[in-house]
This record gives sequence, C-alpha cells and structure tokens, in this order.
Amino acid sequence: MTRVPFDEMQQTVKRAFVNAGMPEEKAEACARIHTESSCDGVASHGLNRVERFVDYLKKGWVDVHAEPALELNLGALETYNGNLGPGILNAIFAMDRATELAEKNGLGLVGLHNTTHWMRGGTYGWQAADKGFIAVCWTNTESCMPAWGAKQTNIGNNPFVMAVPRESGNLVLDMAMSQYSYGRLESTRLKNEKLPFPGGFDQGGQLTDIPEPIEETRRILPAGYWKGSGFAILLDVVSALVTGGLPTSGIDKTGKGSCGRCCQVFIAIEPRKIDSKERIERVIAETVQQVKSAERADDKDEIFYPGEQSLKKRKENRELGIPVDDRIWEKVKELAGG
Amino acid sequence: MTRVPFDEMQQTVKRAFVNAGMPEEKAEACARIHTESSCDGVASHGLNRVERFVDYLKKGWVDVHAEPALELNLGALETYNGNLGPGILNAIFAMDRATELAEKNGLGLVGLHNTTHWMRGGTYGWQAADKGFIAVCWTNTESCMPAWGAKQTNIGNNPFVMAVPRESGNLVLDMAMSQYSYGRLESTRLKNEKLPFPGGFDQGGQLTDIPEPIEETRRILPAGYWKGSGFAILLDVVSALVTGGLPTSGIDKTGKGSCGRCCQVFIAIEPRKIDSKERIERVIAETVQQVKSAERADDKDEIFYPGEQSLKKRKENRELGIPVDDRIWEKVKELAGG
Repeated sequence: MTRVPFDEMQQTVKRAFVNAGMPEEKAEACARIHTESSCDGVASHGLNRVERFVDYLKKGWVDVHAEPALELNLGALETYNGNLGPGILNAIFAMDRATELAEKNGLGLVGLHNTTHWMRGGTYGWQAADKGFIAVCWTNTESCMPAWGAKQTNIGNNPFVMAVPRESGNLVLDMAMSQYSYGRLESTRLKNEKLPFPGGFDQGGQLTDIPEPIEETRRILPAGYWKGSGFAILLDVVSALVTGGLPTSGIDKTGKGSCGRCCQVFIAIEPRKIDSKERIERVIAETVQQVKSAERADDKDEIFYPGEQSLKKRKENRELGIPVDDRIWEKVKELAGG
Repeated sequence: MTRVPFDEMQQTVKRAFVNAGMPEEKAEACARIHTESSCDGVASHGLNRVERFVDYLKKGWVDVHAEPALELNLGALETYNGNLGPGILNAIFAMDRATELAEKNGLGLVGLHNTTHWMRGGTYGWQAADKGFIAVCWTNTESCMPAWGAKQTNIGNNPFVMAVPRESGNLVLDMAMSQYSYGRLESTRLKNEKLPFPGGFDQGGQLTDIPEPIEETRRILPAGYWKGSGFAILLDVVSALVTGGLPTSGIDKTGKGSCGRCCQVFIAIEPRKIDSKERIERVIAETVQQVKSAERADDKDEIFYPGEQSLKKRKENRELGIPVDDRIWEKVKELAGG
C-alpha cells in the first residue's frame, strides 16, 4: 500500500484542477477538501473522485467561475443560486453563511439550489463544528435507489449530516440513505468479499449480501428498509421547497451528471447562546461515556461515536501519509501533468 | 374486531383523564390526540397508551397543572421548560410557537426540555403541515436500544419527524431509530408471527426475526445498523444542547418513567415565503408521482409515500369506527368510570 503525504496529495490534486481550467485559489481550496476526505478515510469522495470532477469541468457541467448569488433574505434564512459552481466551494460558502446567521440569530438556515456535487457531506459538519456550531445539512441527488417497494431506482440516497462541536473531537454523523454506497459495493467485490449485511436485491428480488447482483439490478437497499426510503423522500422534497430548486425528479432530467443542479440545506445553531461552554462539554462527555463504556456485543468490535473513526484515521494518516489506490494515484498525477 | 366511533372514544378517554385529576379542557385536548393516533392506525400511542398515562398522572410523574415557561428568546429560536406537564400539550404548544416564529422569520425553532412523553411524534408534523408549514421535530428518550456494537441498551430510540404540507394530504415521516418498536415485537409475538426482517439479537448474539428472544435481551436493532445508532446519538446530544435539558444518560437517572424529563426540538419553516403555492404543490406532486408510478418490486405491495397509509386509515376509521383491542377498550372504559 502506497502512502502519500498530505501536502503532496493536495498540491497534486490542485495542479490537476488548475490544468482543467480552475483558478489557482479555487483549485487550492477544492484540493484541500478532496485531500482531507482521503485523509479521513473517505477516499471515495476524496482522491478517487478527482478524475470524475475533472471530467465534469471539461464537459462544462461545473462552472469554475460561477459564484453563489443571494436570492432571498428572511433574516435567519437565506437562499442562494449556486449557478452550477464547484459544489465544494458553494457548500463551504453556504455553511459559513449559516454559521454567520446563527451567530446573529442563534439559528441560521441557508438553502442552496442549482449547485453541484459537494463530495463528502461530512466536510460541512466538521467545518461548522470546528467553529463551535451545531450543524445539520443535507443534499438531494439524482435517482440512485429504489423507493421501498419499487423495482427501479426512483429516489436519491440524499446524504444527511449532523455535527456537534467538542474540544476533544467533534461528533459528526455523515450518512447516505442507502445501507451501502455503490463505492462500497465495488470495493467489496474487488476484494472478493461479502457485505456484512444484505445490501440490495438480486434479479430474483431476493435480498443478498453479494455485491455483483446488486450492482447489476441497481436495487440498493435503503438503510432500515422503509425508513431510509421515507427519510430520503422527505429530505428531497424539503430541500427543493426550502431552496426553490429541483427535487430528484427534476435533477434526473438535467443531464449534468451526479448531483448536477442539486439542492442543499445548511442549518447552524449557536449552542453557546443557549448553554455555558462547561455544560456543552459535560453533556457531550456524558453521552460519549455512556455510549463507549457499554459492554461490547463482540470482543473484537469497539463501540464508536459518529466521527470518532474519521478522527483516528486523520491523525494516523497525517503522520504516516494517506493510503492510496496506486492506479488512481497514478491517474491523478497524470492529470496534474506528471 | 370491535370498532368504536371517534367521538365515543375521545369522550371515554377524556373521562379517564378527568378521573385521574386532569382539568376538563386539557383532558379534552389530550384525549383528542390519543384518539387521532388510534384513528390513524397508531394505537400503540393512542388508546393503548391511555392506561399508562393515567398511571403516570397518579404517580405524579406528569403534572397536569404545569405549563411551559419561556427561558430564552433569541428571535427565531426560543427555549421552554416543560415543567413535567402533559407531553402532548407541551408539544402542541411548542410546535405552534415554532410556526409563529416561522411566520415572522421564515424559520423558527423551539427547544423544550423537562417535558414528558409526547405520545405519537407524527402528531406534531401533521399539526404544522396542516397549517402550511414544513416541520422537523424529534424527542430524546431514556435508554431502550443498544448503540451499535453494545450489548445493553444505552441509547434512546429518539423518534424523528419530518412533514411537508400538501393540499391533498401532507407527507409525514414518523420514525424511531429502532427498526421495530417494543409494541411491534409484542403484537407480532401475540399473533405467533415472525418479523418481516431481523429486529434484534438473541442471547447468543445472533440476529433474529423472532420477537421473544429480542424481548428477552432487549437488544433491539437500530434501523440501518450503525446508521440508526449514530443518528440516535446525534439527535440526543443536539436536543439536550439546543434545549438546555437532559441527554438520554440524564433521563436514565430521573425515575420518571418513559421520557420523563426528556427534550424535544421543533423546527418550522414557512415555505410560502420562499416559493409560490403553485410551485410547492407541483414539486410535491412530481415527487409523489415519481415514487408511486415506479414498477413494483412485488405485485401485491403498493408503494407508499410517508403519511399516505395514516391518511387512508384515518378516512376508513372515521367512517367505520376505530378498531380496538377489546381488553384494552374495556380497561379504558373502566378508567372512565363505566
């Protein structure tokens, strides 16, 4: 396994983006997020997504020069048109703005529509929590999962993020509404393994833990069956209504690739306007303690709070270098011009 | 199967509450919600919960005379102390207040702590959506589910609600973080049936779809395994921080029964300040159309949007009477004084 130092990866990814026409400063910021995602163990939306993003830039599906434009200001709620700008930059802007609104009002919501793929959703949870804010955010997507009871993909997997600030490490939940991502199906197949639990349906309509038949049917399983399906539907509709943008059914018609013209909702809350810093830390510490001190179901599996594993990998990979898939790393270096 | 007319059930439940010391007007309002829940097919938190609520009143775990008291006003965000008043009345008040804040600010959040069981969470989603608002609300609970990887119950199932207003029927998602409720395990066991999918772990730590062993271990399965577990943890911490109240670990120590001193968060958004009425209806119609028009996975199972089945049962039961468990109905009549 090759490990690449953080700075080397960021500079390489940046050059790949600059070569595709992105201005220096924007390329630097986007490359940082891709690198941080790989560093946190989420390569699927980090280094592994660089080639596809470059492809989107070349196709004009992402406009490197676009900036988000204010459409509506209701005090604690604002909406923006993302103008098909880079999803990462639009989302950073929107979450930042939500925290500014929360600083003023205790609570802030920014609705962003006509934007593009934000890559790893957890990024924006960490961003707000690092500044001391509670955050809730989500995106809608094109259809990639069947609604519960449907045979074909007709709803998004609509990743949802919740984050809470803590001095010794934020709590960050980052979950798509499918039990497994297509990336996870692929990596499991390549290792010739089975999924830990059934992840979708085969041609005969039977649940299976073998990746191939699910990749063929594209009938990935909503997390919690009808629950993940219903949650995905509501996240979609609310994001379209709150931002003035397109629901999944509209995104399906745009032909701008994954998440082209999608909507995102960013909610920030300033807990220090409600609680003392001491009580905030104590409440979280007690909860983490109760979660982690339980007797384990299984001797070998530790109990984690959401975000804990990202933080562990971050520390390890900052020190030792970020593990990469060699083929993908070579490809990105090629895009960076050798 | 006995069916009871709506008004008869409401009046009977009301008398049971009045007999337990509740003032007439409050008893009327609480009885309406219990009856509506049974009418919508959620008897577990409707008629079937009357006896336990009366028991809580008698024990003094719920204070029939308490009213929610404002603790903090930040403009679009307010917090209230529920003073252990009836959970239904506190929650109706809080969601109503959230919609008032949203009417003024586009967005409103009410944090309610030191309250009691709100019964069916969907009630407050329907309440806001009936007034034209988008709603998101949730509650924390005492420990009733093991965190993913834990052997004993150490987190709440923290029901979560999302609602969207629509003229021909709101979309309302109402889901606890466990795959099945204890009520569902019991009713499945009484019918000598298996669960549709595994619902928890047996003594040997194996997933099972048979209710009894799960009821014994109390190791109910989080919906989506680690996903429902992580979501429950974040919902808990955020509700405690946003309201100034107790997290699950604190509720566990109160000795006030199910949800005694719990926290609830109510968020309302006024979509008509963002979109035209026509676009709101069109976005929802397109999504519902895309969900429901898909080819079915199974000839016999219809595809539903969240809330659709509640509405169907509501219409049927308003016309034909509400189906009741005879033993439970007799018990409630007894509490009502014959």
